Amino acid sequence: MGWRVGVLGATGAVGREVVRLLEERDFPVDVLRLWASQRSAGECLTFRGEQVEVADLAASPVEGVDFLFSAVGDRVAREVVPAARRAGAVVIDKSAAFRLDPEVPLVVPEVNPEDLEDHRGIVASPNCSTIQLVVALAPLAREVGLEKVVVSTYQSVSGTGREAVEELYEQTRAVLEGGEPRPRVYPHPIAFNLFPHIDSFAETGYCREEMKLIRETRKILHLPDLAITATVARVPVVIGHAEAVWVRTTRLLPPERVRALLEEAPGVVVRDEPASCLYPTPREAAGQDAVLVGRIRADLDDERGIWMWVVADNLRKGAATNAVQIAELLAGSRGS
Amino acid sequence: MGWRVGVLGATGAVGREVVRLLEERDFPVDVLRLWASQRSAGECLTFRGEQVEVADLAASPVEGVDFLFSAVGDRVAREVVPAARRAGAVVIDKSAAFRLDPEVPLVVPEVNPEDLEDHRGIVASPNCSTIQLVVALAPLAREVGLEKVVVSTYQSVSGTGREAVEELYEQTRAVLEGGEPRPRVYPHPIAFNLFPHIDSFAETGYCREEMKLIRETRKILHLPDLAITATVARVPVVIGHAEAVWVRTTRLLPPERVRALLEEAPGVVVRDEPASCLYPTPREAAGQDAVLVGRIRADLDDERGIWMWVVADNLRKGAATNAVQIAELLAGSRGS
Repeated sequence: MGWRVGVLGATGAVGREVVRLLEERDFPVDVLRLWASQRSAGECLTFRGEQVEVADLAASPVEGVDFLFSAVGDRVAREVVPAARRAGAVVIDKSAAFRLDPEVPLVVPEVNPEDLEDHRGIVASPNCSTIQLVVALAPLAREVGLEKVVVSTYQSVSGTGREAVEELYEQTRAVLEGGEPRPRVYPHPIAFNLFPHIDSFAETGYCREEMKLIRETRKILHLPDLAITATVARVPVVIGHAEAVWVRTTRLLPPERVRALLEEAPGVVVRDEPASCLYPTPREAAGQDAVLVGRIRADLDDERGIWMWVVADNLRKGAATNAVQIAELLAGSRGS
Repeated sequence: MGWRVGVLGATGAVGREVVRLLEERDFPVDVLRLWASQRSAGECLTFRGEQVEVADLAASPVEGVDFLFSAVGDRVAREVVPAARRAGAVVIDKSAAFRLDPEVPLVVPEVNPEDLEDHRGIVASPNCSTIQLVVALAPLAREVGLEKVVVSTYQSVSGTGREAVEELYEQTRAVLEGGEPRPRVYPHPIAFNLFPHIDSFAETGYCREEMKLIRETRKILHLPDLAITATVARVPVVIGHAEAVWVRTTRLLPPERVRALLEEAPGVVVRDEPASCLYPTPREAAGQDAVLVGRIRADLDDERGIWMWVVADNLRKGAATNAVQIAELLAGSRGS
């Protein structure tokens, strides 16, 4: 006996990955229903060898599912997610719309699975850059506590969506042929370029992606006063976000202990032999479910300072994998 | 009356830029002599409309020049720079060979021009990632002092040299055509990828580029005990290094004061209106001599914490421009 499962935003980069993962991780699906905007409705996705047609969200309400994976933007999610819950679904929502709602658990299965117990029909999955960060930070937070976290990110264009991936490829071709890159999706050329801006800017001078990283990390780690700050940047990489993470721990934790903790941590793979050029790269992370950590080393001036280099596939662990892991816990079908 | 000027490593990315800048900045050159390795000897570079032939370093000793710009690697520099000095030249050396030598001034003209007074025939120009950092840090260091600096870099491939630029283009073409990127220069693919590794690794777990950033910054700012740490990364950008810089100042310095100080600082251009998507990018910095600074904002948890996003053309201010500015000061021909 399985579940009736729906995917909202099924034709987007994350939606497609959810469908792939439901098959790959053998989630007990009895019926799969797919929804997308009118533009993509009528397309078919393959699931277990069968073609599943994508319904038009505007014409066909989200109902008749036990679990709904929502992979749409905040505006659509604010409308459709509560309606789907009223129609009986437990919604795992990838948007930012409900993440900071105190009544909605924000869950990374390796970090705070216990928060799922309080759900009222909506579970939020965090932002991609937050997920990989908390998977790497949680073992340190538990062991000795965190006094300060300073993060700089290197985020791939697939985090924006499929049209951004096309833009990177198109602009790159144009530059290689001696032409000019024409920005459509992004405010600046992204081919052979990068910029410190993801999502819109707030009045504090931080962009929303930075504020998400800060606030979501605090909520997931149950550390509402954690001193954490970030600069985010978009880089010309297709899949895989990297983060240079500097941490000051509350009590001493030598790098070899950090490495040992991370080697035991669920969802983490340590890749850390710099002398053999072994450290995580986005290219290596792409297609994997694990969070890869390397470049673990002491701050040479601060005995409680630690650097880590944290990389993950933003479409998988940063989005689809995390959502499917949440569903697995909710369904009691499989450990994370 | 002008000077006899030599460029060693004239056909490399930095050497060519030096030749261009000598013309562009109207350095008083009477005679220009160029040297390179045997492989490039016989090539001609254009200077003020004339072709200047590149001599073979192995066959033709470096002599007969008042100023020598050395843009070769550490090994060659260790041999040729002292010989050129003995032959009467004042050498401005771009390699790392002499930078930390207490008898050699390490100079960024906007920051520590006074250190030139003590030169004994060799002046070192810092590493690219150091130069842009100290230009942005020096005004804060002077005004209130620095308690802690945490830097993450985004460094372009032209910092490695021309063959790395070719590798990025070749690999990018291969990936766009559905092929595999083949690393030759770098240990990992760089097309649509990035990695936290520049130069070789030391036993501390830091790579040499990180140690250069740390040690050179301390020397230039005359702060031998400055607590500064860094993670460096190579990104698929052709020209322009970016740095996400988190600073804890010793005394309070609000972001609006940081902005005002940087607006007045020599060699700095502030580009900081995030609401209009105005912040520095490598693409914008390429071809400019200034260090561009944006994303100036307070750490929301730490009243003495400040973020800056610092970008410069690594071949110009990060290399050739800085060297030519040093020569201008030495020649007394022009302010920096």
